[in-house]
Amino acid sequence: MEQLLQTRCFNGTQFRFRHDSPLLQCAMTFSLYLPDTATADNPVPCVYWLSGLTCNDENFTTKAGAQRIASELGLALVVPDMSPRGNHVADDPGYDLGQGAGFYVNATQPPWSAHYKMFDYISDELPHLIEGHFPISQQRALSGHSMGGHGALVIGLRQPSRYSSISAFSPICAPSACQWGQKAFTHYFGRDDELWRTYDAAALIANTTARVPILIDQGEDDEFLHTQLLPDNLLQAAANYPMLTFNSRPGYDHSYFFVCSFIDTHLQFHAACFRRDRETE
Amino acid sequence: MEQLLQTRCFNGTQFRFRHDSPLLQCAMTFSLYLPDTATADNPVPCVYWLSGLTCNDENFTTKAGAQRIASELGLALVVPDMSPRGNHVADDPGYDLGQGAGFYVNATQPPWSAHYKMFDYISDELPHLIEGHFPISQQRALSGHSMGGHGALVIGLRQPSRYSSISAFSPICAPSACQWGQKAFTHYFGRDDELWRTYDAAALIANTTARVPILIDQGEDDEFLHTQLLPDNLLQAAANYPMLTFNSRPGYDHSYFFVCSFIDTHLQFHAACFRRDRETE
Repeated sequence: MEQLLQTRCFNGTQFRFRHDSPLLQCAMTFSLYLPDTATADNPVPCVYWLSGLTCNDENFTTKAGAQRIASELGLALVVPDMSPRGNHVADDPGYDLGQGAGFYVNATQPPWSAHYKMFDYISDELPHLIEGHFPISQQRALSGHSMGGHGALVIGLRQPSRYSSISAFSPICAPSACQWGQKAFTHYFGRDDELWRTYDAAALIANTTARVPILIDQGEDDEFLHTQLLPDNLLQAAANYPMLTFNSRPGYDHSYFFVCSFIDTHLQFHAACFRRDRETE
Repeated sequence: MEQLLQTRCFNGTQFRFRHDSPLLQCAMTFSLYLPDTATADNPVPCVYWLSGLTCNDENFTTKAGAQRIASELGLALVVPDMSPRGNHVADDPGYDLGQGAGFYVNATQPPWSAHYKMFDYISDELPHLIEGHFPISQQRALSGHSMGGHGALVIGLRQPSRYSSISAFSPICAPSACQWGQKAFTHYFGRDDELWRTYDAAALIANTTARVPILIDQGEDDEFLHTQLLPDNLLQAAANYPMLTFNSRPGYDHSYFFVCSFIDTHLQFHAACFRRDRETE
């Protein structure tokens, strides 16, 4: 691993690393925040933040203001990039397909299937790397914004035993039913309805036996609310899911001004779930 | 004024505006954060944030995480751009001269003297505009980063009756003695030592009768500490200045990871000075 950044931030250290991913067959960059409480004798739980369309690991790291509360709560933050990258990796001129738009799926269709395996990267390869190199425990949570909120919900609902909690800001709740998701899924999967459903939070939550606590915040002035995000589809499908809190926030939009306003409550939620899991072990 | 942005952020509203500046003879953009407590009947004090080289109003607004504590303390935040802008405005290919590098001075040398009057813009034209349009009182403070820390110190020390307090992160403390300042001052002023001293915080503080409280934070791992910032020059010159607090912070660098880590303490400092000034009125 190549270290790109190390600097003090609140009561902890902000890092940035690049590593070669055997799974994705390209170099990948991620940011890592470690609170001072993280030591070899005291590995800390970790929140994985999944970013939205056009972002990389730097948007959340520089804009969300999450390090303050993470250092208070003793949480590590891992912020991966959200698609494979490189000149040899398939791409598309659109901002909503290809590099910068990985949608956290394992693509099955060429040319995407060669590198676009972000589901396995986030849920398996990256945690393995992180937990092997840093004082970070195997207690994991997922959070994310927009396309990253979709990723957090889908990965957490499909692998509930691996995560203590899931949260999302302004998530794409039903990608099968919105333009962003339909375009991406058509390219990554072709017209395979059954496969689409396995990457659609609204479809997953209707039938899951998972019982991972979920927290969602959604701004009411979000410009994508009624066209791309469709939280009502998720809420209707989640009628029997007992552990979902949904906060509708008047006046907030789709930006990081919204994320930074409520990131404290999300990290507090994850810290409480980690604590509860440790106590019931 | 043209409104470019309005969205909720913490318990307040984040705005961005563009206006035509008669003084600078160009369009200027600024960001404004108003806490919910600001009303026509309750105008709130205002902290002006002055940005560093290559920045505009968006760096602080998106990266410093200042809105949370500003809304708690009931402070407005105004973040101006830091040079005149436009195709008709003199510029230079270097990042440290011309557009993006106004140095908060009134330039006297052509071609710069036509538009580069940032000292008057920050200390006079902009506050006049702000206090005439928004529920903001005439209690003002200055804060800034790097070149903006220089601006905050120079403007506040030269106009102490207009400001309750000054703070700075990683300021250029003695521009006459560092490469950044020497290059800019030579272009903006020519070789006029007396004029240079009026824009040099270390020179100003040695002889001032001002008694504005000053708070400075400086990261010890700052890559510009010993070449461009030179805080020791300021501290030596300030031997008789009774109201200067200087914090040297091990491990922090020159980035906004440092600013966000201590912005709370700076805004708390300004709020305390505003309160003291109101009580002694």
